[in-house]
Amino acid sequence: MVDNAAEYRIEHDTMGEVRVPASALYRAQTQRAVENFPISGSGLEVQQVQALARIKKAAAQANARLGVLDPAIARAIEDAADEVISGRHDVVAHFPVDVYQTGSGTSSNMNMNEVLATIATEKLGSPVHPNDHVNASQSSNDVFPTSVHIAVTAALIDDLVPALDHLAVALEAKAELWADVVKAGRTHLMDATPVTLGQEFGGYARQVRLGIERVRTALPRVAEVPLGGTAVGTGINTPAGFPQLVIELLQQETELPITEAVDHFEAQANRDGLVDASGALRTIAVSLTKICNDLRWMGSGPNTGLGELSIPDLQPGSSIMPGKVNPVIPEAVLMVASRVIGNDATIAWAGASGSFELNVQIPVMGTALLESIRLLANSTRALADKTVDGLEANLERTNALAGMSPSIVTPLNKHIGYENAAKIAKHSVKNGITVRDAVVDLGFVERGELTEEQLDAALDLLSMTRPPKA
Amino acid sequence: MVDNAAEYRIEHDTMGEVRVPASALYRAQTQRAVENFPISGSGLEVQQVQALARIKKAAAQANARLGVLDPAIARAIEDAADEVISGRHDVVAHFPVDVYQTGSGTSSNMNMNEVLATIATEKLGSPVHPNDHVNASQSSNDVFPTSVHIAVTAALIDDLVPALDHLAVALEAKAELWADVVKAGRTHLMDATPVTLGQEFGGYARQVRLGIERVRTALPRVAEVPLGGTAVGTGINTPAGFPQLVIELLQQETELPITEAVDHFEAQANRDGLVDASGALRTIAVSLTKICNDLRWMGSGPNTGLGELSIPDLQPGSSIMPGKVNPVIPEAVLMVASRVIGNDATIAWAGASGSFELNVQIPVMGTALLESIRLLANSTRALADKTVDGLEANLERTNALAGMSPSIVTPLNKHIGYENAAKIAKHSVKNGITVRDAVVDLGFVERGELTEEQLDAALDLLSMTRPPKA
Amino acid sequence: MVDNAAEYRIEHDTMGEVRVPASALYRAQTQRAVENFPISGSGLEVQQVQALARIKKAAAQANARLGVLDPAIARAIEDAADEVISGRHDVVAHFPVDVYQTGSGTSSNMNMNEVLATIATEKLGSPVHPNDHVNASQSSNDVFPTSVHIAVTAALIDDLVPALDHLAVALEAKAELWADVVKAGRTHLMDATPVTLGQEFGGYARQVRLGIERVRTALPRVAEVPLGGTAVGTGINTPAGFPQLVIELLQQETELPITEAVDHFEAQANRDGLVDASGALRTIAVSLTKICNDLRWMGSGPNTGLGELSIPDLQPGSSIMPGKVNPVIPEAVLMVASRVIGNDATIAWAGASGSFELNVQIPVMGTALLESIRLLANSTRALADKTVDGLEANLERTNALAGMSPSIVTPLNKHIGYENAAKIAKHSVKNGITVRDAVVDLGFVERGELTEEQLDAALDLLSMTRPPKA
Amino acid sequence: MVDNAAEYRIEHDTMGEVRVPASALYRAQTQRAVENFPISGSGLEVQQVQALARIKKAAAQANARLGVLDPAIARAIEDAADEVISGRHDVVAHFPVDVYQTGSGTSSNMNMNEVLATIATEKLGSPVHPNDHVNASQSSNDVFPTSVHIAVTAALIDDLVPALDHLAVALEAKAELWADVVKAGRTHLMDATPVTLGQEFGGYARQVRLGIERVRTALPRVAEVPLGGTAVGTGINTPAGFPQLVIELLQQETELPITEAVDHFEAQANRDGLVDASGALRTIAVSLTKICNDLRWMGSGPNTGLGELSIPDLQPGSSIMPGKVNPVIPEAVLMVASRVIGNDATIAWAGASGSFELNVQIPVMGTALLESIRLLANSTRALADKTVDGLEANLERTNALAGMSPSIVTPLNKHIGYENAAKIAKHSVKNGITVRDAVVDLGFVERGELTEEQLDAALDLLSMTRPPKA
Repeated sequence: MVDNAAEYRIEHDTMGEVRVPASALYRAQTQRAVENFPISGSGLEVQQVQALARIKKAAAQANARLGVLDPAIARAIEDAADEVISGRHDVVAHFPVDVYQTGSGTSSNMNMNEVLATIATEKLGSPVHPNDHVNASQSSNDVFPTSVHIAVTAALIDDLVPALDHLAVALEAKAELWADVVKAGRTHLMDATPVTLGQEFGGYARQVRLGIERVRTALPRVAEVPLGGTAVGTGINTPAGFPQLVIELLQQETELPITEAVDHFEAQANRDGLVDASGALRTIAVSLTKICNDLRWMGSGPNTGLGELSIPDLQPGSSIMPGKVNPVIPEAVLMVASRVIGNDATIAWAGASGSFELNVQIPVMGTALLESIRLLANSTRALADKTVDGLEANLERTNALAGMSPSIVTPLNKHIGYENAAKIAKHSVKNGITVRDAVVDLGFVERGELTEEQLDAALDLLSMTRPPKA
Repeated sequence: MVDNAAEYRIEHDTMGEVRVPASALYRAQTQRAVENFPISGSGLEVQQVQALARIKKAAAQANARLGVLDPAIARAIEDAADEVISGRHDVVAHFPVDVYQTGSGTSSNMNMNEVLATIATEKLGSPVHPNDHVNASQSSNDVFPTSVHIAVTAALIDDLVPALDHLAVALEAKAELWADVVKAGRTHLMDATPVTLGQEFGGYARQVRLGIERVRTALPRVAEVPLGGTAVGTGINTPAGFPQLVIELLQQETELPITEAVDHFEAQANRDGLVDASGALRTIAVSLTKICNDLRWMGSGPNTGLGELSIPDLQPGSSIMPGKVNPVIPEAVLMVASRVIGNDATIAWAGASGSFELNVQIPVMGTALLESIRLLANSTRALADKTVDGLEANLERTNALAGMSPSIVTPLNKHIGYENAAKIAKHSVKNGITVRDAVVDLGFVERGELTEEQLDAALDLLSMTRPPKA
Repeated sequence: MVDNAAEYRIEHDTMGEVRVPASALYRAQTQRAVENFPISGSGLEVQQVQALARIKKAAAQANARLGVLDPAIARAIEDAADEVISGRHDVVAHFPVDVYQTGSGTSSNMNMNEVLATIATEKLGSPVHPNDHVNASQSSNDVFPTSVHIAVTAALIDDLVPALDHLAVALEAKAELWADVVKAGRTHLMDATPVTLGQEFGGYARQVRLGIERVRTALPRVAEVPLGGTAVGTGINTPAGFPQLVIELLQQETELPITEAVDHFEAQANRDGLVDASGALRTIAVSLTKICNDLRWMGSGPNTGLGELSIPDLQPGSSIMPGKVNPVIPEAVLMVASRVIGNDATIAWAGASGSFELNVQIPVMGTALLESIRLLANSTRALADKTVDGLEANLERTNALAGMSPSIVTPLNKHIGYENAAKIAKHSVKNGITVRDAVVDLGFVERGELTEEQLDAALDLLSMTRPPKA
Repeated sequence: MVDNAAEYRIEHDTMGEVRVPASALYRAQTQRAVENFPISGSGLEVQQVQALARIKKAAAQANARLGVLDPAIARAIEDAADEVISGRHDVVAHFPVDVYQTGSGTSSNMNMNEVLATIATEKLGSPVHPNDHVNASQSSNDVFPTSVHIAVTAALIDDLVPALDHLAVALEAKAELWADVVKAGRTHLMDATPVTLGQEFGGYARQVRLGIERVRTALPRVAEVPLGGTAVGTGINTPAGFPQLVIELLQQETELPITEAVDHFEAQANRDGLVDASGALRTIAVSLTKICNDLRWMGSGPNTGLGELSIPDLQPGSSIMPGKVNPVIPEAVLMVASRVIGNDATIAWAGASGSFELNVQIPVMGTALLESIRLLANSTRALADKTVDGLEANLERTNALAGMSPSIVTPLNKHIGYENAAKIAKHSVKNGITVRDAVVDLGFVERGELTEEQLDAALDLLSMTRPPKA
């Protein structure tokens, strides 16, 4: 809401008159929508509002060039759009329509049409019409989904990919630093043959880099926009060349790899590209879940857990247990992952709900997807800066545990067979002695089945972590 | 953030000094959390903040009665809590900790402890300590989840159930109004035997009433709170009788059916009751999806769809197609359903992530669940008031379509058998004639297999919608 | 398929002639369905086939009593149904229709009608018609969903609840056995104040018992069946009293608490009760996930993990690492949980897909739900018998870890305040000394802030696990 | 189970003796697994069993070349593997281990090792050991997930992509056939400007082709296999060059684009590539949902629905309503979509559950993913062959409805403005007259605002469906 003043003005639309706050830049249809949808109290993501303004700007330019709009009117609309793009007008105040509105986003499209018409009218000194001018050659049905795709494309390229790269770099630094830090491997959570801490962090970094690859392979289908299809995909009421020209102008304005839909009927009726992109984010959330859980477990303790890593202390961990420090950033990232999983379910459900020429759950899809991107970008940066960078390995502990795993018996398989090796492992655990002592104890050296040299070579921990070279 | 002023004060906690905005009611730990979690930009739902304040108030009273707190300090904390509960302090400004924080909600618990300590200190004129006084006999680990359960219990009872009841009443009014309005039944979307429009709306109402029942059966397990378990469920650092007394005071304060956890270890380590409750909301979302899709299809047209209902015109439907009116409220409700489905996935995922004595995804669970309740409550009210109440049946159309369904041949099964009836139905469709004419045309009357009277009785549409009475 | 013989017979239905294997008990419509749906290769769950046969039996009895069927024909159908119920006819061979068929299950209903007609015809020596006799007073639209609800009700009551109770009993035995076994509590995976192993197992048992409660509260809405609604819920073509009589007979036949739908239009058009029930199973899967993860972590090691529990050795754990033993049953249960989560998503998605008088995704809903119940029942029994019963606590280890947690400083809060206690905890961890030594080391005893007696009392581990008594 | 005979033989493994059916090709560890996991009654998908045999064959060859295995033993293992690959040994009988087993698939890997050892021993005439020979240079931890990735890669390339292409071709044929068939467009289910039926089918075809693209972009990360990492990713106990050689041999054997993992630690510990691939299938399920719903609605009727398409009659539609024909194949496909959505949830949940060097939910992930592919491939072929190919357009109806949409007023916007056009649309609907008559009726021609020629040109339906050409 713009204000709580007693002053209102009367606006009208095709359905009649509406009372609008005197200071509002919007008009009748926005006001109807504000009253119709008192549901969540939240509007579209700011990035989408800006993308919508950019489309209006490009459309006005194209309409002028193609003779649909008077150049002066077009210029006024462009200037008005620039004001919105630059953030001069408060988004919450002037774009008050709820996310849970008409499923085509018509109310938000009209909100933008009305705000730009008001600003442009003032600039021009003569009436600029929300539909006939600002919305000329357009429909909510092509413009609104296009604004989602542009905002998502921008957020993926400008926010998420750099954040993931930032995290990968942080993980790679640890992979290099700890390349030779031997630690116990664990499979099924049980003691396995050793790995290096660097190998584990290299694996995490690769997961994150694969996440970037997943985003990149989804991008072409997100960057394909339905603009130009207008009402039902046929491009009714657009001049020849309009979609191509608007998209070219948008490419220049946004520097994004936006392309025209290959098939306007597919592109207008479906938001499958968003479902697809959300699937990529979902896989990233799955990767982050694994990484953060590993970090939390390696950092567990300090005294009763695994205690292999020290996670940076960021804040007191408990309101009752003094001195407790918790892995708070990995926990926050794990909660982000849960939210991304949920947003993904929302997007798939909404994406499957379309009929004939239109999907009518676009606002919730766009909002959920942009939220997922934002949360992932912000939380992975925090993870890199506030946790990964400051991790410290407890070298004494990792080394000791590595040697305590009974699975270090594995290299003996080739000397004495799997079944004999199993006997050694069990003997070692049962009697609480080292594997080496168990080998000796069971007479393998005495009987000449293994020499001391073979035994020492086989039980060298670091060499167990090195793949054989050709 | 409280302000952008250049003035800060220095606060300290067990980790050292922190710079805090001069006007902030919160202190060091809140400030650390604000800096640690720049992730979503959104905090907890207001209802949870208020529930947390209510717990602090009740805990202060109990601590005073049980001799843990000086009565004057307790009174100051109570008064401070009342100020927060009453909304006197802006929630966004004074409770700025992000949802995506430490998974126990410790930062938000400490935020509340600090804000109340500051207010209480001022009231009392001597220091009130956030941990030693405000948090006395408590831990984030019992208090924070308790605040979620109390807020959810309140929202279910006070917001959702009345809203669902309101919708059910609106649907029941239509069920009664249209009790005798015959229309074509549809199964597999294909023409079936007739029903009345009232029967359909009675079914919708029953779905909504079952939704209320689902909420009610989930409530006892939501209303069971872990309070009193403190750090790990054992109740360490609480005086005898503390949980029982706090819960009794909370029952009085909130008038909610809150109960003490039957097993504090289950109750503290798991949030299964929230997963359960979310499942109930999810089923309600499924019900609403069916109802809104039926409304949309019955309202489809006006000329090329089913056209059985007129849905109230709330706003112009299209920025390009003049005069178009769309079922915008049902669409908004369908988007709410998608969001509730997603929140439910978030909650289940988060709910399964706990380890040992604590689940550490409580903030995202509470926020998602409270959002689902809010969206469902607001949207079902809108559905009742802005759509169901104003629905009009197109009687001529419903009646005509009912008679056109070839499945009205069904009552003839018992006279001439299923296979003969099938021949009639196919003959009717193929030749574009009524079922009655097809019967005659195929000689059933002439051959005496059916009399005209039997035929007329069998083909009476309204009687086909009436279950036989014993 | 029944056979690969060259011999076929010709059957017909309302669409014409069909070639059917000579030995098949089914007829034309089943054969059409076999050919139409070569999709998954799997049919309905056996329990649903049996439930369908029970309905046909009860319907035949009711039809005879109400004068709709000749008593001899009814008796022949009953006898035929008894043969199917008793398992005399191979379900795979004679009920070959794929799960992925028509969404009403009409093909499976006709499969049953045809099989019973064939058997009954042979018994009676004169023709029994699949539609006019076996299906008399029924429709797929009421009978098929009723068969799902009956099968699910039976599986919940007879299979799942006893299996969950069996698991709860096994957990409770450990809770009692280990009531005084002190161990380190863990929150955020970090060292916390102590609990007993018995308290943890008591919490698990309570989770499982709450799971039973969840099933029980869902049951009334699962046990409510649409039978009697026939084609569209109106009960067209049923004699008065039919649904009540059939349901009474089914209650006797099955000994299940089946009830007639309160509103036949709700009950026929929607499968919300199944969505609801699946939500209960989903919550149980969430509970089992937590329990199995805790078990796996407590059993991790033997040397590099937590090592608090020994999980029974059931099979060699690794094909390469000799002597390795893994927590294989908890892993199997966790995979079951993943499947139940997936089935739940299927059921919700399918449940939201209905239109007007029918949901047309009933076969996949019933199959997924019955699978979830079967997997949960079998895996929880295995968990009880093969893992929980044989668990052994490593008492030396649990006790040692309990004392090593720096959080045991917590009881000192009330003597010296939270901030001093934090200093002690940090001093203890930093210098690798006990909390008791840290207290002394920092001079609290020397300065008289704590006596030795107070210190010993405060640091008694077992007493920290005992909630104060009123 | 192989048989119910009274004859058993005694086998042993590192844990002791086991009684195995006398005729079983498997040995002790398989038998233990059969007894340990009586959960679902179903084993792995056949494709995965075959892929596992192919890996064993290639590994034996590589082991021989690299001097690890005696060439005669290797040859015997290869021959044994060929027998399994060729289907000579019944999969159900000889690979009886349940899907819900140890999460690494060790039991199934050992099952294969034992079966091949038994066959190879017989061929060779001297003992071939399951671990020391068949499993040489391998671990379940690299071999088992590799078998999933190979089976999935094969199923995507050989089954799903051709099936989707087949469906796309069928849709494209209709797009061409109906290129000029005008029909009413529908947005929000409400009457919109016209499209052609061909445009709609072209859009469906494009959705399916994008589905193929989604599969193709996921493939590289599915085809990347962890083979060579053995126990924990380090490649312990493999000779130099082993993974490269095995993968080369597998490429030859399978003709699939399999590649070695770029990072063996990522590849062994995570199954993100499967989560990713499942996301692609999920998007295809979303596309198919939209397509099938559109088909069902266009085929709704015949008399009370939209009636624009006739869907081929495949089977009688109702057991009670004679002559009814339902869209059974689209319904089956919609149920497949629900299952794929559920499998996708299972896969994501399982994919997020890994710890350190291994994910231990691989069997359920592989089985769910292979099931999704199979269901999608089979059902899309059925959709093409049994539904799309036989669709018939009801030309009279589509044409009539197109002209009845009030939205055909849209081209008048540019002549008389949006607000005047809205008046015309509303006048037309209110009075039940054509848009043309409404224009005249409201005096636009009389007043000279539009000429008759302009009016006729503007209201030409087919031209409204043609995007303007540059």
